[in-house]
Amino acid sequence: MPINTIYEPIQEDLVKFEDGLRSVGKVDFPRLAELLDYSLTGGGKRIRPALALLSGKFYAYNLTSLLPMAMAVELLHTATLVHDDAIDKSLVRRGRPTINKLWDEERAVLLGDYLFGKATEFAADTQNPQVVKLFAQTLGIISGGELNQIFNAFNPEQTRQHYLQRISGKTASLFSLATESGAILSQAPEKSIEALKDYGCNLGIAFQIVDDILDFIGTEEELGKPVGSDLAQGTLTLPAMLVLERYPGDNPVKRLFQNRAKQENIKLALELVRNSSIVDECYAVASEYAAKACHNLNRLPHGTSQQALIELADYVVNRRR
Amino acid sequence: MPINTIYEPIQEDLVKFEDGLRSVGKVDFPRLAELLDYSLTGGGKRIRPALALLSGKFYAYNLTSLLPMAMAVELLHTATLVHDDAIDKSLVRRGRPTINKLWDEERAVLLGDYLFGKATEFAADTQNPQVVKLFAQTLGIISGGELNQIFNAFNPEQTRQHYLQRISGKTASLFSLATESGAILSQAPEKSIEALKDYGCNLGIAFQIVDDILDFIGTEEELGKPVGSDLAQGTLTLPAMLVLERYPGDNPVKRLFQNRAKQENIKLALELVRNSSIVDECYAVASEYAAKACHNLNRLPHGTSQQALIELADYVVNRRR
Repeated sequence: MPINTIYEPIQEDLVKFEDGLRSVGKVDFPRLAELLDYSLTGGGKRIRPALALLSGKFYAYNLTSLLPMAMAVELLHTATLVHDDAIDKSLVRRGRPTINKLWDEERAVLLGDYLFGKATEFAADTQNPQVVKLFAQTLGIISGGELNQIFNAFNPEQTRQHYLQRISGKTASLFSLATESGAILSQAPEKSIEALKDYGCNLGIAFQIVDDILDFIGTEEELGKPVGSDLAQGTLTLPAMLVLERYPGDNPVKRLFQNRAKQENIKLALELVRNSSIVDECYAVASEYAAKACHNLNRLPHGTSQQALIELADYVVNRRR
Repeated sequence: MPINTIYEPIQEDLVKFEDGLRSVGKVDFPRLAELLDYSLTGGGKRIRPALALLSGKFYAYNLTSLLPMAMAVELLHTATLVHDDAIDKSLVRRGRPTINKLWDEERAVLLGDYLFGKATEFAADTQNPQVVKLFAQTLGIISGGELNQIFNAFNPEQTRQHYLQRISGKTASLFSLATESGAILSQAPEKSIEALKDYGCNLGIAFQIVDDILDFIGTEEELGKPVGSDLAQGTLTLPAMLVLERYPGDNPVKRLFQNRAKQENIKLALELVRNSSIVDECYAVASEYAAKACHNLNRLPHGTSQQALIELADYVVNRRR
């Protein structure tokens, strides 16, 4: 199902969200306006703001606080992407040159900082101290997760538990911030807040596992960035981990992590994964988390929001970009 | 007067502040703990937290919210220093290797992000939505000011107004966040909040002008970093601006900004400033802002806090590091 069909229940509010996003770029300082405009209008699926809005639709839907929260999660997401690209020296994102490529790393770092500030302002605009605190904690958790990834780059001694912990931090924490905040801001009862938080967390893990699979099996055109980027950065994702498990003697991931013939071994690792059942096995894990996410929704009132979140879990697993 | 004597009225609370700062470094992830410990225990004058506490002492002094705010401003300050050093590729700060030198730029960026998150958490802990909003805006203003500086690097066509605007953004905004928040959190009346905000702003401008003078006349030992760093980065500060004004034909700052004989022209510019009345003229401007700051305090109740803030203005102008 196309994502815009899933977004049907919040379509009009997503238009307001896009207007809000554009207004962030309207600043007095033209060079900054240009950076903001470029970083905020590059597409993106808007999953995180949609999650905040949909999660806010089960009880007292209140756009006065939900729209700022939708802005906060998207700006926080954008800020982390801008910093990630600067850190990884990535050249392409969503089919366009990155900020660090078009401008430089220095501006990318400061633009990210500026976006953190704006994101925090919008979080503050919810006027809900509990949500502001969650937002702040999430920023710490995401950067902690990213640091964990960097410190473990090219380290083959990582377990699945490490992997799940890492992607929970760097990706799922923001998904669950979106869903939990949406619930809190709509006066959901405690049990429903927990259910939506768990849904966000499980969905985020599924999302990241699929991202990690696509880095092996996607095309550059679909991904909008080079294939095999994770391996090039030395990030041990689930497919690469399964290569290490299945071929404990010698294998291209092991050789790559030993810093041997980088390009050659990335190519071999991609081929190995594509031509094996590793892809299916990874998809099975992603589907398991998506199913858990849907299961979490059983604790919530039935209706269009619940339906949309179920469809979103399906979309997350089956997407090609 | 030594700074610890000025801090006398808040001495015990600064001990609690230092304890709080150390507790930020107590995290489960040892590599992150090491980074935090290094970045938070490197000394520093603690002016910003002291400003928050002293500004909170005129009315209902309430450590439950003032201590978190003191933490928030210091952590925000530390985060910006860590990012600045990474951006400028600075190797030394406060007489010690920078994070980007000891580790690398990638970790410096992520550590800064983590510190932003922690700072925001402490701001949220004040439970005061107005203060949280101010905090968030300040993060945007600081990074906007830094971007302004980068976009204008090696641009000799900047007026004093540009300079004041730039340092208001990158430095004074955090000083005034500290003083204004301290006032708000102690239930100060509106006029006193304004007075303390203005004090912070004027003090911050004086502070940065002195910083910019010391970059010309200090020693590497006093500064804890190389002399002439601003010129090397192409940052046009007040002393350099006066060189351009006084010697409109040819001068070492102009040549440097034309990318000619970098080291040679930095050396000549330092000598030119040191051996001219430019230093006095810059100090006169700094003193003017410090005097304005003290004047702002007239609107506040007399007492030990007012006295300490007056002494702090004097300290800021006369410090050698």
